[in-house]
Amino acid sequence: MRRTCELAEIRGCAIGAQVGYPDLVGFGRRFIDMRAGELTDAVLYQLGALAAFARACGSRVRYVKPHGALYNAIVDHAAQAKAVVAAVQQYDAALPLLGLPGSVARQECDTAGVRYVPEGFADRAYTPEGRLLARNLAGALITDPTTAAEQALALAKSGVESICVHSDTPGATKILDAVARALTAGGYDLTPFVK
Amino acid sequence: MRRTCELAEIRGCAIGAQVGYPDLVGFGRRFIDMRAGELTDAVLYQLGALAAFARACGSRVRYVKPHGALYNAIVDHAAQAKAVVAAVQQYDAALPLLGLPGSVARQECDTAGVRYVPEGFADRAYTPEGRLLARNLAGALITDPTTAAEQALALAKSGVESICVHSDTPGATKILDAVARALTAGGYDLTPFVK
Amino acid sequence: MRRTCELAEIRGCAIGAQVGYPDLVGFGRRFIDMRAGELTDAVLYQLGALAAFARACGSRVRYVKPHGALYNAIVDHAAQAKAVVAAVQQYDAALPLLGLPGSVARQECDTAGVRYVPEGFADRAYTPEGRLLARNLAGALITDPTTAAEQALALAKSGVESICVHSDTPGATKILDAVARALTAGGYDLTPFVK
Amino acid sequence: MRRTCELAEIRGCAIGAQVGYPDLVGFGRRFIDMRAGELTDAVLYQLGALAAFARACGSRVRYVKPHGALYNAIVDHAAQAKAVVAAVQQYDAALPLLGLPGSVARQECDTAGVRYVPEGFADRAYTPEGRLLARNLAGALITDPTTAAEQALALAKSGVESICVHSDTPGATKILDAVARALTAGGYDLTPFVK
Repeated sequence: MRRTCELAEIRGCAIGAQVGYPDLVGFGRRFIDMRAGELTDAVLYQLGALAAFARACGSRVRYVKPHGALYNAIVDHAAQAKAVVAAVQQYDAALPLLGLPGSVARQECDTAGVRYVPEGFADRAYTPEGRLLARNLAGALITDPTTAAEQALALAKSGVESICVHSDTPGATKILDAVARALTAGGYDLTPFVK
Repeated sequence: MRRTCELAEIRGCAIGAQVGYPDLVGFGRRFIDMRAGELTDAVLYQLGALAAFARACGSRVRYVKPHGALYNAIVDHAAQAKAVVAAVQQYDAALPLLGLPGSVARQECDTAGVRYVPEGFADRAYTPEGRLLARNLAGALITDPTTAAEQALALAKSGVESICVHSDTPGATKILDAVARALTAGGYDLTPFVK
Repeated sequence: MRRTCELAEIRGCAIGAQVGYPDLVGFGRRFIDMRAGELTDAVLYQLGALAAFARACGSRVRYVKPHGALYNAIVDHAAQAKAVVAAVQQYDAALPLLGLPGSVARQECDTAGVRYVPEGFADRAYTPEGRLLARNLAGALITDPTTAAEQALALAKSGVESICVHSDTPGATKILDAVARALTAGGYDLTPFVK
Repeated sequence: MRRTCELAEIRGCAIGAQVGYPDLVGFGRRFIDMRAGELTDAVLYQLGALAAFARACGSRVRYVKPHGALYNAIVDHAAQAKAVVAAVQQYDAALPLLGLPGSVARQECDTAGVRYVPEGFADRAYTPEGRLLARNLAGALITDPTTAAEQALALAKSGVESICVHSDTPGATKILDAVARALTAGGYDLTPFVK
C-alpha cells in the first residue's frame, strides 16, 4: 500500500534532499561549527528520513542540495564540504550534489566521484566573488521578473545546469514564468538535471 | 566507499529499527497520545534515518521493533498499532514487526499482510495478563540467569519466535549464556528470525 | 536597561505562563504520560524561562494556565494536577492557577493553599460533563459572536472568574466585543483577576 | 513548600548559570553563528529556567558563566559578547559575568556596568595568546595535581579572581586539594567571589 503523494506524481518532478544543520529553531540558517563526522552523520540522517517518505510514496530521492547556512558553508569550508560529499558517497554515490559553481564542494565531488551540478539563483543577488548576498542585507532578494530572467539567462550562459527560484519569493510564479521564457528564447531546453 | 560498521559485520547479526515516540528527554518511555497519521510519520522518519546508516555500512534494516512505551501501547491501543503497521507497510511490507504474542498489533499485521513475530522477554517479569510489568515496579527486572533461562524456555514452548535479553540488564552476558543453553537443551535451534 | 516590551505596557495587561507538555512538534496538544516529578520540573522550567523575559521587560508573570492537552489532563488526572500545583507552589505560591471549574486541580490547589481561578471559554463548545469538546471534533469552535456572548454570560453566572477568547479563533475581535458588552450589560465588571 | 536541594545547602556554595548555545546534541561545544538578538534571548531563557529551580530550592542564581563554545566565542566575538552582556543586564545587572581575563566581554561589561570576574583554569592548557587550548587537542587537559596547582597560583598572581577545576577532569578532587593548598600557602584567601 502506498501513500498518496501529490508532489511525486507531478510530471517530471524530482524529489531532492535539502539537508541542513541540525538547528530547527534557526531554520538551518546559522552556521554551526560541526566536526566532519558529526556533519556526515547529520546529512545521512536527513537523507534517510526523507528517503523513507519518498519511498512510502513510491518515489525516491534523486539529488542532494544543502540548505541555508550549509549551502554557503560548503562553498569555502573544505572540511564541511568534504563531510557532506562523504555522506552522499556513503548513502548513494550516484546522487548528484547541487551547489555554487566555484565551490570547494565541487573539488571534493570530483575527488570522490560524485556528480556536482553547478546551480544559479534567479531571485538572489550575488556578491562580486560569486557568493550569495546574505538574506539580511538590502537587495538580497530579486523580485522583479525581468531582472530575474536576465540573471537566469546570464547564469545559464556561464555554465550552471540548474536555476533556482524560491517558492517563497514574492511573485515567485511570475518570476518562474519570465525565467522559463527567457531560457527557452535563449535556446535552452528546460529539462530536469536528474532522471 | 563504505563506512566501517563493526556491528553489521558480526556473523549473523541483523539490524532492526527500534522505533519509538518522539521523546528524547523521556527516552521513549512515556506514552504520547499521538494521532495515527503523526505516529505513522514518526515511525517512517526513524526507519528511514536508521536505514541510511545501515546502508552507509553496506547493510540494511531487517525488522522493526517498537521501543519503550510504544512497545506496550501497540499491545492494546488499536489506532496506534494500526499506525505503526501502516508505516511498516508503506516503507517495506516485507519487514517483520516484533511484539508481544497477544497484541492488537498482531491482528493489524494479519490484516495488512505484514509478518508479525511474537517475542518473549527472558529478563522481564510479566503481569497475569501477559503484559510486561512496568519497569518502575519492584521485580520488573529478572537478573537471575536460571530464572531467566526457565522463563525463556517456557516462552519458546508457548510459541514466541524471538527471545529478548536487554544488554543493559545486570549480568546480561550470563543471562544470555544460560538462556542459550536452556533453549538448545530444549531442542530449539538458535537462528535469526530474519534473513 | 530594559527591553521594550509592548505587550507588558498595555494598560491592565497581565502576563501569564501557559505551561504545557514538552512537545514542540505537537504544540502541546498531545497528552504525555509524564511522571509527577518530570511534570513539575517541566512546568518550573517554562515558568522560569518566561519569567526571565517578563523581567527583562520590567514586568513579571502573574498567573499560570496550563496549555493544550495539559489543560485538559489536570481536570481528571490527579497525579498530573498535583504535579502542576507543586510547581506553582515551589515557584511562587502566590500565583493563581487557571482551569476548568470542576477539576481535580482545584482540589489540589485547595490542599496546597494556591488560589484557583475557575475559567470559562466563550469560543469553545463543552461536553455534557463540562469538559471542552476536543478541537478535532465538529462544532468544537464557537465563532458566532452572539452565541459566544451568551455562553460567556452563562459561564459568568455559573461562577467562573475569567473568560477566555482565543486570539486565533476566526472573528476573535468581534467575539471579544460581543462578550464584553454582554458581560457589562449583565452587571459584571471587567477587571483582571490578578493585580 | 520548598524542594530539597542538597547542592544549595552546602556551606558557601553559590549557584551560577552556565549558559550556552542551544545545541543539546553538541553539548554546547560547537560555535553557532547566532545573531545578537537570538543569543540574548537564548541566554535569558536559560537564566530564567535555572533561576526557577534555584528559587524552588530557596536559593537563587548568583553569577553567569558562558559554557563550552560560547565561553570561547565571547573572548573575541564582539557582537556575541555584547549579546551575552545584554542578557545579563536585562535580567539582573547585579549578576557578575565570568570569563577569560583579556576578552572583549570584559570591555562590554565595563560599558554596560556589569561586574566582570576574570577566571583562570587549573586543569586546562592555554595557548600563547591566553586562550584555552581546544579540548580535542593533545595536552588540553591538565591532570597532574602539582602542575595544576602551580598554574592556579600563577593565574591568581596574574589577577584572576576565580579558579576553575572541572568536576569531570580525571583526579578532580586531588587537583582541587592541591590547588587549594597552593593558593592558601601563597597567601590567598579561598572565598566565593559572590555573596
